[in-house]
Formats: sequence, C-alpha cells, structure tokens
Amino acid sequence: MDSPHKRKKQPELVRRALLDQAARLAIGGGISSVTVQAVADAAGVTKGGFLHHFPHKQALIDALFQEVLDSFGDELDRLIAADADRFGCFTRAYITSVFAVEGPGRWSSQAALWMLMLTDATLRALWSDWFNSRLGQHHETDGAGHLAIVRLATDGLWLADLTNIEVPERDWLLEQLVAGTRQPLG
Amino acid sequence: MDSPHKRKKQPELVRRALLDQAARLAIGGGISSVTVQAVADAAGVTKGGFLHHFPHKQALIDALFQEVLDSFGDELDRLIAADADRFGCFTRAYITSVFAVEGPGRWSSQAALWMLMLTDATLRALWSDWFNSRLGQHHETDGAGHLAIVRLATDGLWLADLTNIEVPERDWLLEQLVAGTRQPLG
Repeated sequence: MDSPHKRKKQPELVRRALLDQAARLAIGGGISSVTVQAVADAAGVTKGGFLHHFPHKQALIDALFQEVLDSFGDELDRLIAADADRFGCFTRAYITSVFAVEGPGRWSSQAALWMLMLTDATLRALWSDWFNSRLGQHHETDGAGHLAIVRLATDGLWLADLTNIEVPERDWLLEQLVAGTRQPLG
Repeated sequence: MDSPHKRKKQPELVRRALLDQAARLAIGGGISSVTVQAVADAAGVTKGGFLHHFPHKQALIDALFQEVLDSFGDELDRLIAADADRFGCFTRAYITSVFAVEGPGRWSSQAALWMLMLTDATLRALWSDWFNSRLGQHHETDGAGHLAIVRLATDGLWLADLTNIEVPERDWLLEQLVAGTRQPLG
C-alpha cells in the first residue's frame, strides 16, 4: 500500500511526467509506441493514475500537440516582437519558426506529432483553429495576398523536407521567401 | 471443387479486381478498412488467392499508390503536350493536376492514399523517386528557381485544403501561381 508521501505526489507533476514521457517515447519509436501502459510505466504511475489525468490515449496526444502549438506561438511572438519591420512580420516569423532547428530530440518528437496531425482529424482541427486564429490576429500586418503565397511556399518546403523531394538552391529559395515578405515597391 | 472454367480465371483480371476493390474500400472507410480478408471477399477470391498476387497488404497498397502515380504522370503528359508554351510547362501541368476534380469517388480514394503517403515510409519513397525523376526529366523547361517556389506554393495550397486552413482570394492566388510559370520579362 502506498505511503502517505507517495499518495500526496502533486497532480501537476504527474501530468507533466506523463506528457514528457509520451514525448520521449514518440522520439524513440513514433506515435505507435505511445501506449497508455508504456507512458504510465515510464512516468512511474499505474494505468489508473494515467487515466485520472487523461481519460484515454487520444486526450494525451491532443494535450501534447496543444503544447507544441503553444510553444510555436510563443516563438512566433518572440520573433515578431524583435522585428523592426511591421509589414509581413507574422509571415517572416512563420518562415523562421517552421525551419528552426532546436536540437534533434525536440525536433523528432515534434516531427512525429506534426506527421500525426496530417492524418488525425482531432489534431488537424486543433491546428486549423490555432492557425486560422493567428491569421485573423495578424490580418493588419499580414493580410496582403502575396504573403499568403509566401506562407504556402513555406509549407510546401516543409512538406518537401518531410517527403525527401529535392529542392535545389535551397538557401536562395529561403532568401526569396523572406524577401517576398517586404512591402512591395510602388 | 472449382470447375476448370473457374480455375482458369485470368490472373490479370483477379489482380485488377483486387486493386479496384481495395480502392472502393478505401473510399468508404479509409485505408484501415482495406484488409486482406475484406479485399479478397469483395473480389470473390480466397485469402490464398489474394496472397498469390500480393504477398501482404502493404504490397497491395504500394501497387495502388503506384497506379495513382502512373495516372498522375499520364495526366501531366497530356497537359504538357497540349501546352503551346514550353517554358514552365511541367509546373503549369502540375498546378492543374494537383487541383483537378475528377469526381468524388476517385478523389476520395486517391485522397486516402495521398494522406497515407505522408506517414508511410514506403509510399513516401515511391513518391519522392517518382517526383524527383520528373523534376530531372523536365529540368530544361522547368529548372528555373522561381518555378520551384510556384510548385512549393502549390503543395502548400494542397496541404491547406487537407488541413482546413483558410485561403482567402483563392482564385486570385491560383492565377498568380500560373502567371508565375511564364518566362520572366527581360
């Protein structure tokens, strides 16, 4: 039987441990290795302890992905705040954030979640709600039509990386995308 | 015991029936509904009959996707042949083909396969081999750097449709992409 000390383990710490262990498992073996039992074991709780925080595996995946979106949003806000130019600032921040390399561990767990988003209806809904909301928020600085083309090309480049499509003169291409976010002349 | 007439059922017809039934099941219930047993039943053969043509489910999925690529390639070739302008002809054909609506049934089965490609390493390899080969084939007419940006934006728009991201002034945007495939002035 658990000691009073163990039973008082803070719920927030347990929730954090469950999320961190799920991310770690996703890095190692993809989303399929993120099972309720594996995550519970890694976090040092019972299956019942897991289900107390997340009613099922999907709820944990949703929470993980929402954290990725929140962290992406924080990164965008930091970049926008540091950008002296207002016009196109969201799109420039978007280009930078999409291709930021934060270290193989973090990138790998996030990559697994982004790929899952492409085929998981619930995660797709989280993504579109979040991104469409940001588009609305930055309409004044980033509503110009050609900036939409720059963002779409950014997504296309992300997809090319994911699918191993060759992109010659990649550095030049990224420079063109950033240049495309500046106010057009005349 | 089967009659000699049944035993002589042409292998090519059986293979065709297996592929067609798999596509039909994918339309209705996604890739997960494409099981060896379900496809065999729908095609009127035994599980052994299925395995004679495809050693496992993945081999059938690979064959289905290869057919999608072959058909995509035929469409590109038709559009390129009908295009009076050489410069950028592959990219223009690509834009048209990516957004061609061929009827809800065909689109749905292909959509299921394209989505699977995004998360299935074998299909991704089929896609990148095919596309990188086409890029090489059309290097003379479509090697210019800005055409890569147009193709990436096309892929980004495809992804936006898949993920329900809002794209305001979509018709204008598509016109810009096509206009971007013309030889730049000067």
